Amino acid sequence: MSSATAFAIILAGGGGTRLWPASRRRHPKQLLRLGGDESLLAAAARRARAFSDPERILVVTAADQEAAVRGAVPWLPPENVVVEPLPRNTAAAVGLGGVVAIRRAGAQAVLAVLPADPHIADEARFTATVRAAIAEAASAITTVGIKPTHAETGFGYIRLGPAVAAAAGSTAAVHQVGAFVEKPDRATAERYVASGDYLWNSGMFFLTAGRLFEEARRHLPALGQALDAMTAAPDFDAAVRDQYPSVPSISIDSGIMEKAAGLHVVPGDFGWNDVGSWAAMTAIRHADEAGNVVVGGAELIEGKGNIIVAEPGAPYVGVLGVDDLVVVATADAVLVIPKHRAQDVRQIVEAAKKKGREDLL
Amino acid sequence: MSSATAFAIILAGGGGTRLWPASRRRHPKQLLRLGGDESLLAAAARRARAFSDPERILVVTAADQEAAVRGAVPWLPPENVVVEPLPRNTAAAVGLGGVVAIRRAGAQAVLAVLPADPHIADEARFTATVRAAIAEAASAITTVGIKPTHAETGFGYIRLGPAVAAAAGSTAAVHQVGAFVEKPDRATAERYVASGDYLWNSGMFFLTAGRLFEEARRHLPALGQALDAMTAAPDFDAAVRDQYPSVPSISIDSGIMEKAAGLHVVPGDFGWNDVGSWAAMTAIRHADEAGNVVVGGAELIEGKGNIIVAEPGAPYVGVLGVDDLVVVATADAVLVIPKHRAQDVRQIVEAAKKKGREDLL
Repeated sequence: MSSATAFAIILAGGGGTRLWPASRRRHPKQLLRLGGDESLLAAAARRARAFSDPERILVVTAADQEAAVRGAVPWLPPENVVVEPLPRNTAAAVGLGGVVAIRRAGAQAVLAVLPADPHIADEARFTATVRAAIAEAASAITTVGIKPTHAETGFGYIRLGPAVAAAAGSTAAVHQVGAFVEKPDRATAERYVASGDYLWNSGMFFLTAGRLFEEARRHLPALGQALDAMTAAPDFDAAVRDQYPSVPSISIDSGIMEKAAGLHVVPGDFGWNDVGSWAAMTAIRHADEAGNVVVGGAELIEGKGNIIVAEPGAPYVGVLGVDDLVVVATADAVLVIPKHRAQDVRQIVEAAKKKGREDLL
Repeated sequence: MSSATAFAIILAGGGGTRLWPASRRRHPKQLLRLGGDESLLAAAARRARAFSDPERILVVTAADQEAAVRGAVPWLPPENVVVEPLPRNTAAAVGLGGVVAIRRAGAQAVLAVLPADPHIADEARFTATVRAAIAEAASAITTVGIKPTHAETGFGYIRLGPAVAAAAGSTAAVHQVGAFVEKPDRATAERYVASGDYLWNSGMFFLTAGRLFEEARRHLPALGQALDAMTAAPDFDAAVRDQYPSVPSISIDSGIMEKAAGLHVVPGDFGWNDVGSWAAMTAIRHADEAGNVVVGGAELIEGKGNIIVAEPGAPYVGVLGVDDLVVVATADAVLVIPKHRAQDVRQIVEAAKKKGREDLL
């Protein structure tokens, strides 16, 4: 199977508050233009064209994000935006993409499962890594593990197992997956990184549609049954509406991948960044000599290490004489938080929620 | 002359950028509701009712602020909003108010000249002090000097001269003015405050209209001539338009008061605050136990000594984990600046101006 025929299943249903006030329930992280001119989702879909075709790039999203998602990838065939009638976590979302692929191309279809929201700095290396993973997918469920750049405690890790021979034509260093391991504490993370035996779990998976269904039937029988029913149904949309409420809400990682056997992992080193908080802007955008990132209609006078973001429609932002501060403005909200506290944005969102400000969530 | 017949001349033409982004060219400090429910101007005019009548309370303002001023004091007789056709500093503005007073009530009319923008915490003591100053006005130009609470370098000072007998019925400690002195450096200011012989120059002056005109003729003959012409003219509005372009642009302090002889000063101690920067909010508004002042639709989580202001129409402001920071949001601009740098707001305004953002000035 040529890599050109792989289906990309881009998971774009996520929410999250860590990039509030720019990200909202109906305008989540993947729709933000954090890297510059295009949204993270648009970039993810564009990158997929290097190993797939527009006809085989699927974006799985939530009903309340459908319109925004369609707007972000206008070049995608309309039927390739696959809408979940209910939120059911990533195992179901991947399964739903698998149903679309298998209905169109049969059980041998290779699926490249890709989160919509990481920022990728080196797209050429990303493409090469994904192609290597796709080449492995016919023989083993394959993931891409990210070579860690620091002792991050916010990610799951993959312990490398023994090296295996890469698929014909690939020069990648393919390994067996030793184990998926939970988010570590600081000391453990440092040990992982120092050892060289651990990679970050990227959430990217490569496997055939048939294999996905087999694993679902084995580990999540209710999901497996629903996938089979949606695959066989004459009316796909009706089947999705019928089946979705009963599928389990669990992540693809813990529901299937951590239980499946014989996984392979291709190490990746392509400037991957999950943009887990505003602090990531320093990594994904050009910073000035003082380490400041200033985006949009904003003025920074003096200060170093700041992240100042004025989203379209936001007030003019004037900042003077502060260091290591995050200031983000949208048309209806302003965030001010120290960079090292950027993960605590959720506390502000929760406070707004308690005040009944549903409009800000 | 009973104090009830004094004219209040409230000077409300000022501009200034120190309270940007809330204050703008057409919406200056005196129109802000910094103290709470009413604007500084509305409070100044309301306070004047304790020693004057609405018919004798005059607000002198600039043409581009006229509408906003009328809106701030809707109970004022319309003809008591006196509009300068051109900005000509405070000597001319006081003179213009004097012309209105003398046309209505003759040269014996007592004028209480009051800046519109200080915040007054203790209004009863303010009223008593003003009444004492008004009682002195028939015999001497009288000012109110503020008992200093700290070694402020941003104000001019008044050196106390010998005590004089207060006017009949007054218990105030009236002194001759020893001298008006310039804004001091830090060491000099500390010496002034320690000596007990110096007061802050409040910009409040009390004198008869006739005396004002005499002093203007003596020290600013071009202004004196214009005042006489405007007083004698059958068509007041036309005379103002004709005369105003030729009057000198100089402050009442340096143009007249510092040159006039025999001034008296009544010391005042009534919680006077000129609201010279956002840092003053801590003094004029209720601060919580951690020294934070939070105004409007804003949420502060953790942090101490902050001033967070969301003006009407501003985005929701969420701040977490910062100290001694000023955050001010309006519908079209956001300011973030350390409290100890609050005087440097003008740098941000100048940067916006350089970018051609006239809409923000």
